[in-house]
Amino acid sequence: MSKVEVKKVVVAYSGGLDTSVIIPWLKENYGCEVIAFVADVGQGDEELVGIEEKAIASGASECYVADLKAEMVKDYIYPTLKTGAYYEGKYLLGTSMARPIIAKAQVEVARKVGADALAHGCTGKGNDQVRFEGAFAALAPDLHVIAPWREWDLVSREECLDYLAERNIPCAASLTKIYSRDANAWHISTEGGVLESTWNAPNEDCWVWTVDAEQAPNEAEYVTLNVEKGEVVAIDGKAVTPYEALLDLNEKGAKHGVGRIDIVENRLVGMKSRGCYETPGGTIMMEALRSVEQLVLDKASFEFREELGIKAAQLVYDGRWFTPLCESVMAASESLAQDVNGEVVIKLYKGQAVATQKRSDNSLYSEEFATFGEDEVYDQSHAGGFIRLYSLASRIRAMNAAKK
Amino acid sequence: MSKVEVKKVVVAYSGGLDTSVIIPWLKENYGCEVIAFVADVGQGDEELVGIEEKAIASGASECYVADLKAEMVKDYIYPTLKTGAYYEGKYLLGTSMARPIIAKAQVEVARKVGADALAHGCTGKGNDQVRFEGAFAALAPDLHVIAPWREWDLVSREECLDYLAERNIPCAASLTKIYSRDANAWHISTEGGVLESTWNAPNEDCWVWTVDAEQAPNEAEYVTLNVEKGEVVAIDGKAVTPYEALLDLNEKGAKHGVGRIDIVENRLVGMKSRGCYETPGGTIMMEALRSVEQLVLDKASFEFREELGIKAAQLVYDGRWFTPLCESVMAASESLAQDVNGEVVIKLYKGQAVATQKRSDNSLYSEEFATFGEDEVYDQSHAGGFIRLYSLASRIRAMNAAKK
Amino acid sequence: MSKVEVKKVVVAYSGGLDTSVIIPWLKENYGCEVIAFVADVGQGDEELVGIEEKAIASGASECYVADLKAEMVKDYIYPTLKTGAYYEGKYLLGTSMARPIIAKAQVEVARKVGADALAHGCTGKGNDQVRFEGAFAALAPDLHVIAPWREWDLVSREECLDYLAERNIPCAASLTKIYSRDANAWHISTEGGVLESTWNAPNEDCWVWTVDAEQAPNEAEYVTLNVEKGEVVAIDGKAVTPYEALLDLNEKGAKHGVGRIDIVENRLVGMKSRGCYETPGGTIMMEALRSVEQLVLDKASFEFREELGIKAAQLVYDGRWFTPLCESVMAASESLAQDVNGEVVIKLYKGQAVATQKRSDNSLYSEEFATFGEDEVYDQSHAGGFIRLYSLASRIRAMNAAKK
Amino acid sequence: MSKVEVKKVVVAYSGGLDTSVIIPWLKENYGCEVIAFVADVGQGDEELVGIEEKAIASGASECYVADLKAEMVKDYIYPTLKTGAYYEGKYLLGTSMARPIIAKAQVEVARKVGADALAHGCTGKGNDQVRFEGAFAALAPDLHVIAPWREWDLVSREECLDYLAERNIPCAASLTKIYSRDANAWHISTEGGVLESTWNAPNEDCWVWTVDAEQAPNEAEYVTLNVEKGEVVAIDGKAVTPYEALLDLNEKGAKHGVGRIDIVENRLVGMKSRGCYETPGGTIMMEALRSVEQLVLDKASFEFREELGIKAAQLVYDGRWFTPLCESVMAASESLAQDVNGEVVIKLYKGQAVATQKRSDNSLYSEEFATFGEDEVYDQSHAGGFIRLYSLASRIRAMNAAKK
Repeated sequence: MSKVEVKKVVVAYSGGLDTSVIIPWLKENYGCEVIAFVADVGQGDEELVGIEEKAIASGASECYVADLKAEMVKDYIYPTLKTGAYYEGKYLLGTSMARPIIAKAQVEVARKVGADALAHGCTGKGNDQVRFEGAFAALAPDLHVIAPWREWDLVSREECLDYLAERNIPCAASLTKIYSRDANAWHISTEGGVLESTWNAPNEDCWVWTVDAEQAPNEAEYVTLNVEKGEVVAIDGKAVTPYEALLDLNEKGAKHGVGRIDIVENRLVGMKSRGCYETPGGTIMMEALRSVEQLVLDKASFEFREELGIKAAQLVYDGRWFTPLCESVMAASESLAQDVNGEVVIKLYKGQAVATQKRSDNSLYSEEFATFGEDEVYDQSHAGGFIRLYSLASRIRAMNAAKK
Repeated sequence: MSKVEVKKVVVAYSGGLDTSVIIPWLKENYGCEVIAFVADVGQGDEELVGIEEKAIASGASECYVADLKAEMVKDYIYPTLKTGAYYEGKYLLGTSMARPIIAKAQVEVARKVGADALAHGCTGKGNDQVRFEGAFAALAPDLHVIAPWREWDLVSREECLDYLAERNIPCAASLTKIYSRDANAWHISTEGGVLESTWNAPNEDCWVWTVDAEQAPNEAEYVTLNVEKGEVVAIDGKAVTPYEALLDLNEKGAKHGVGRIDIVENRLVGMKSRGCYETPGGTIMMEALRSVEQLVLDKASFEFREELGIKAAQLVYDGRWFTPLCESVMAASESLAQDVNGEVVIKLYKGQAVATQKRSDNSLYSEEFATFGEDEVYDQSHAGGFIRLYSLASRIRAMNAAKK
Repeated sequence: MSKVEVKKVVVAYSGGLDTSVIIPWLKENYGCEVIAFVADVGQGDEELVGIEEKAIASGASECYVADLKAEMVKDYIYPTLKTGAYYEGKYLLGTSMARPIIAKAQVEVARKVGADALAHGCTGKGNDQVRFEGAFAALAPDLHVIAPWREWDLVSREECLDYLAERNIPCAASLTKIYSRDANAWHISTEGGVLESTWNAPNEDCWVWTVDAEQAPNEAEYVTLNVEKGEVVAIDGKAVTPYEALLDLNEKGAKHGVGRIDIVENRLVGMKSRGCYETPGGTIMMEALRSVEQLVLDKASFEFREELGIKAAQLVYDGRWFTPLCESVMAASESLAQDVNGEVVIKLYKGQAVATQKRSDNSLYSEEFATFGEDEVYDQSHAGGFIRLYSLASRIRAMNAAKK
Repeated sequence: MSKVEVKKVVVAYSGGLDTSVIIPWLKENYGCEVIAFVADVGQGDEELVGIEEKAIASGASECYVADLKAEMVKDYIYPTLKTGAYYEGKYLLGTSMARPIIAKAQVEVARKVGADALAHGCTGKGNDQVRFEGAFAALAPDLHVIAPWREWDLVSREECLDYLAERNIPCAASLTKIYSRDANAWHISTEGGVLESTWNAPNEDCWVWTVDAEQAPNEAEYVTLNVEKGEVVAIDGKAVTPYEALLDLNEKGAKHGVGRIDIVENRLVGMKSRGCYETPGGTIMMEALRSVEQLVLDKASFEFREELGIKAAQLVYDGRWFTPLCESVMAASESLAQDVNGEVVIKLYKGQAVATQKRSDNSLYSEEFATFGEDEVYDQSHAGGFIRLYSLASRIRAMNAAKK
């Protein structure tokens, strides 16, 4: 395959080994100018400090850093939470939700600098390549996309380090790296190492943000969340922005070992992978939202919200954020969330976040209706007619069978 | 409404206050012979000891007791577990799954004794009346159904006790009963009392089978489950029947506080209710089955299984067991379960049951495919073509937009 | 059951036999003032001429007539069309879509006149009672609802005519009426008579608006529709309002025998019924919308639109219009409709309306991409990678099986 | 990309220009022995006569012909019909259903002759490559797959003809071929030519099997079908095998212009294509099956069957036949079909096939229940209770809103 002609490429740069190699590799193989783009999605200062200098030292002609943290929580995570999405029943989509906003900001930089190509450092076996390139296709179909990991023949950390050394590009990366990790404000994921065999239990090295339940406090802690239209808006009585809410709940949850999952999941590209994910704050938020829904959604609405959750999880995981279908699913969940107002008390204890108290002005629950005894709204005799009609088809079918 | 003519009625009898009143009430109000039917679904010896004598003392001419425990777990619970059904995301359907088998056995007694009517002690506000009568409609559309709670004017325990006292029918029931409970081999449910306000947390009286996480052992316990075709077949290396598996895991789970939920749910009859449910063994089983599914189900199959779970939960909860639709959904999940073989280690600790190790001969996970580096099956360059086609519609749509 | 206390009731009045009886019956049985409410939804002048006088002659103290035709098409029918709803695969929901707007307007009259009750003339076996009362529950839960057909003991047309005659209330209704019909701007339905046996074919009396295909012109006619955001906005180049569009297409379709269906459907109240429906204009509109969707919706979006259609059909048929779930489903379809712009030529001939030409600025179809040969966007070699990943799980599973 | 080592390849051979080129091309480019495999799926004698000689003349060392017609209808088409699958609302999956059985028979020949590779003549832009290779992945993951159209640089019929002429391989193919067609016992598809613009109407050349409605008889014809467990088992009183049924109904339908569709559809590989499909017999069968379902499926079952139809259409279209998910969906529809017994009269006239009479011993329709007046099973007063409970959540929600 002959390479495309490229003059200026914007690469999603993390400061890690892979993307440090990508900068010189692009220059050498495409003869183009390389602009580094760094998205701050809450991966932590450790990765961000001095990153612009690093990018320049690796050969980038410029480096743009965009702080996307608040926008990510408000416009990507909060809408997804309203759908109740858990990928394959468990995964809170931490990596998935960050990719579209990064890709979008990267395209914006490309437009600003007049680039004709985009590059990323995702491998050819993962989901992220699809998420990036899916977003690029929707937002910038005219720009070329370069995925060095699918092109070059470097296949080990050692080769990457040698590549940099030969070019005198400084890099602090170590030769061995047991785990592959990805972090943002919402979560941290860990893959590889001992996790590569599903018959190995995760060990203490597999977990980064949260304490083991065994090491968590022996006293439970309670946190009160206010929810409006399906969004956490206050914690313990104090109004918070989405990003503040997440930071606060991350801290509380991590302390109690909340939000760990260990999952073997189906990647979009056809194979399975195993990961340990820590989402302490998100786990608390989901418990709060689902609890308010218990009060305010009627039976059929709750079922539809569950179906939307399954669909949204697939779409977000699969990198379909910028599609009409994803917008349609989000429009449906946004509509259902209009009634989801209330207050919830969550108990944090030894790895669990459990709602113990909940109330809502929109609650369809009523002590009066639910309990034994007469009330104004519900007449027990109504049930006889209800059941008769509800089971009429069964009755007729059975009567048919009896005739034979 | 004029009463139907009834000669002999079989009543689902529990030995409790309600059904003790129902026996004489039926005789007086319908002038019919009353046969008591007791289903042993694992509610416990306390309720069953001396129950035949009690039924006769209350006026029943005969009392049949059927041991349905093993059949219930094997033919009702195990098939439901394969669907992954959680009603409204949480509830493991403990009461719901017991009703169809009780109703079926009750109909069998009615056929045997030549009865022309069936009666139950469910109130007019709950789901169970629908489940019983839905089953009756499907299995015995020719038999009359009497639901005394929807007919009589007794509205308190005191009135019920007075009713028995006036007739010199002995009854050990107490005047006050704070909680309404239902137990079988699978679970125990608790409603009423402090739980009537959703803003009250459950207190220690609300829980019966399981210890508080705070009181659970400080040491985790591990249990190994073998799964074949979606069914737990061995525990810690020992082959077990479905019922034995449940008994064993109930004990293990209860000790560690596993399997509690506190939920506000939508009843089928239109209002919400709040309940605390304890399903220790079932919670462990579900974790095991879902964990093996993680290994063996492909992406689209896993998603369909999730959809089947939502549907099955609704059908079972709504008393639709004996319908063609329920059979169809179960046929689909039974089919998917054919590959669900494997072994799982579950960690029990402070209220949680979490799979830490899992393996399967049918596993679609492979270290070789998932990890970095080349392999025989997966060529990273394939991904470029995949993504291009996968996002083609997005690309074309964006190109259209750019033309405008 | 003791009757509720009612002072002033607004009854949905059609001028037919049933509702003519209801007015005096309400006065006599509830001792209340009766206000007649007539909804003009396009049922035709024959039913509307002199209706106010008739209502007064029957004993109503006032009669309100509301012209709902334009609003019905714009706000109830057009949104439903975007979902692609066909109830049970066929029925275009003609009666169902009219009920919520009638009920809403009736409630508005009740508020205006200070009524404390609402009444309708629907029988106890049909869907319409549920649709009216479902809307009343959502819009006016404080008002009493009276359904005379479920209360009184009149069971034949003869008894109804006698009832009026005894009170000297004039009525032009005939003693026998073979078919039960319901018409509005969208459709006319016919039930009863020869249709009561499903083994009888409909005869010519069963069809009212449309000609038999055999009698339709031997020359096809072509009509061109413009669609914007999922709505028909112009016909043969002339801009039209939704209501105008419907009138025009009804005429064109009826002339060619378009839009007949003969269906046995599941009523919401548990039994089946058989009806012949004529929806000439609607059938043409649906063909036009679906044809534009063929051009603009991607694969996954089209599938979701099909699922939304099934859900919306159930909700609308079941009288769930004024529910959060219905709003959510409509929000999703409204979102998907944003791209549904285009132009379609429909051929009308002998009972069929078939799109023969279609185009759209948003079309994802491209001659260049679809046909044999190379193009810029699609490289055939991409397909190899796509297929490899797309079928990877199958491959791994088969490799597992081969190992055993 | 270096070519794989192949010794003996079995190629799916049609006798057409493409596959005639493929035989020598494989020999020259892979240095391997080539075995031709011809699947008789009802494409017609014209294509099959002398095909073995043609294959040998093209360089194949052997040619196997398998008559798959009866099996295809019985084991691939009939199960799919039970699901009610229409791809994107219209397409009866004619090409899709033939591919898995061809691939399976091709694999069987490969096993028999000890081949190490499989080849097909599908282009790199279509669905069939995915269907073939998806089946190969599931049935023979150990065999290499060669897709010459994705490898070679022949891009026109002229080049293909030259290729054969240079090698003195006789070929009767013409230089120009306007339409691309695929036929089997179930359908014939036509793409290309005038159809490449969606703004062109199909002309008479686009249709092969069926007459124009305008040319169809002016007299309607009626055909009576008996259905058992969701399968057509007799026509006009005569028992027929599935294949016989199809042949007979094809003839009847074609004569009346039944079963034409003109669709722009989403291919699996991301772009849209436009095709005209003729499925005369299949269209009649679908009308018959759906009509019996109208009688026997209850409301919720009918809805689930519709959902299964959408899913099955996607799976079959997408080449997912040999997957656990497809088996699961088919198990569900097979289960629902157990009650689908009955008799239907279909009217064929001017392009339409419409059921006019239908009956079933399992019919849930009953004149007695559906019509006005009292009956034993349905008491109109039941409806009051039903509605009250059915709309209870709406009522409570509205009462909440009124409180604010």
